[in-house]
Amino acid sequence: MMKKLKWGILGTGRMADIFVTELIQLPEAHVVAVGSRTQKNAETFGVKFHIPERFGSYSDLVDQSSADIIYVATPHPFHKDNTILALEAGKHVLCEKPFAIHAGEAESMVTVARTRGLFLMDALWIRFTPLMQWLKESLEKGILGKPGIFSGAFGYAMDFDPQSRVFNPYLGGGALLDVGIYPLSTSVWIMGNPTETVSLATLGRSGIDERTGILMKTADGKLSVLYTAVINRTPYDFTVMGEKGMITVHGPWWHQNSLTIYQGSKKQLVKHFPFKNRGYGYMASHVMTCIRNGQTESPIIPHKETLTIMKVMDQIRQQIGLKYPGEA
Amino acid sequence: MMKKLKWGILGTGRMADIFVTELIQLPEAHVVAVGSRTQKNAETFGVKFHIPERFGSYSDLVDQSSADIIYVATPHPFHKDNTILALEAGKHVLCEKPFAIHAGEAESMVTVARTRGLFLMDALWIRFTPLMQWLKESLEKGILGKPGIFSGAFGYAMDFDPQSRVFNPYLGGGALLDVGIYPLSTSVWIMGNPTETVSLATLGRSGIDERTGILMKTADGKLSVLYTAVINRTPYDFTVMGEKGMITVHGPWWHQNSLTIYQGSKKQLVKHFPFKNRGYGYMASHVMTCIRNGQTESPIIPHKETLTIMKVMDQIRQQIGLKYPGEA
Repeated sequence: MMKKLKWGILGTGRMADIFVTELIQLPEAHVVAVGSRTQKNAETFGVKFHIPERFGSYSDLVDQSSADIIYVATPHPFHKDNTILALEAGKHVLCEKPFAIHAGEAESMVTVARTRGLFLMDALWIRFTPLMQWLKESLEKGILGKPGIFSGAFGYAMDFDPQSRVFNPYLGGGALLDVGIYPLSTSVWIMGNPTETVSLATLGRSGIDERTGILMKTADGKLSVLYTAVINRTPYDFTVMGEKGMITVHGPWWHQNSLTIYQGSKKQLVKHFPFKNRGYGYMASHVMTCIRNGQTESPIIPHKETLTIMKVMDQIRQQIGLKYPGEA
Repeated sequence: MMKKLKWGILGTGRMADIFVTELIQLPEAHVVAVGSRTQKNAETFGVKFHIPERFGSYSDLVDQSSADIIYVATPHPFHKDNTILALEAGKHVLCEKPFAIHAGEAESMVTVARTRGLFLMDALWIRFTPLMQWLKESLEKGILGKPGIFSGAFGYAMDFDPQSRVFNPYLGGGALLDVGIYPLSTSVWIMGNPTETVSLATLGRSGIDERTGILMKTADGKLSVLYTAVINRTPYDFTVMGEKGMITVHGPWWHQNSLTIYQGSKKQLVKHFPFKNRGYGYMASHVMTCIRNGQTESPIIPHKETLTIMKVMDQIRQQIGLKYPGEA
């Protein structure tokens, strides 16, 4: 029988709730521990999900729990410290997106994982879904000939609220890191690393990017056109255009189960794919497969690509003038 | 009874054919003359559309025909000279898009029209359709609150052909001037004049832009995200996003007859609009109304906006390194 992997959950916010709801349904996963900044929150979360080990601090979670892997679900600015804390306690780590605030943080996280020989992955869950795996493979087989343009958006509309994480620079707020990373990381995955990036943004009342547009180009001329927002709802789909036609992956990003292939001038083919729950299970299963295989990074989102994405986001933030507290 | 306006057609290429097919169906229009570089082409075109006056040169057309207005349908690099030729002969002019190769040409065209007190308009036909007129008015009334993001694309896929106008720098080839102008001019119309523009392009085998991405921002932070291509088919729709939701105008650009209004998280309303033939008739009727009213420019596409669009295209061409023969 397959050995169950033991998970510890670091953080008890909204993402932890959503992810664990799905994780506990996987037969190969056993959620054994939860850690929060307060014992009370750890208890509430533990009771809700029947998690036996409950810790009132992150240090206790990583030092005392029986978990093999820690899922880091805290706000962005804490990812680096929380991840390194877990790695140094000998735990594998799955870290929520964005992986870190900037590439320097990401590099230090990767260095610790490599030094310790532990598994570490950026939780870019969407590329593990059946649709995205089919798309990536089909593009590599040349379904559209050479891809030429990627376009994608992900933005939502919130009323300005200085209390919200989304608008709070101290919590790494703004559109780019929160949801812009979806089209951006998908573009890097499908089109390759950009060698040129330009961007424009509307920095809002609290200094974070309320809207951002991004253009990227690879060395061989492939173009990506992306935008994101936290004050405007956008379409949630993306399109890959190649020599032989185009494929639109229908949104929303959080439920990718159909796409349309356009070939020639008229031909359209809609394809449907399985999509379980909110889609996080595909990623969690992949993580457990990697760990059981003794891999320290995922072939689907290797460290190098995580670092590329972080560097591109750093470059965009420099162009649009978005600095987080404490950054030079 | 409404006095018929007499049209002369300058150029007998594909656009002339398409436009005249529609123009002859309008009761207030009388196509009286056609001019071509050869008498043979003028005769062929004249016979096809029952046009009585047929001229083997553009000078003869503007000097000898009884036309009140000349429709300039030659390739882009000839728009300036052809328009000025007609204006100096005392004719009103409707000039195909792009209005000119660069803003300097456009300025000289506008100056001649103003000096002579003649009507001159940039043939950006799409904004005259019932759908676009409804959209513009509804946005001004606040249907989406303050608009925040405009996204739009128009690209088609052609195999590289150095003989084609599209790939020929001597004929003003490339995506931006040919079809990029559709989302660009629509964005300027709806979002206002940009104060910042950045762009990236793939310059192709003949030096023209095969793919171009454009970001624009207005002084009050409204963002536009646009792309175009001549070697990749793109989606043909556009979306305006505001505080209260978004409206997607369904493509293709050449047949805009429906849009979807998204308000709140779920509400969707599809609206349909009349759309006659290929849509050029709405523009032609507007032109005739202006001329009958003694107007020398259109309130819907005034000279100032034509010049703005040309200046933005100049700026984009400078950023992407696209120069046409003879440009400094």
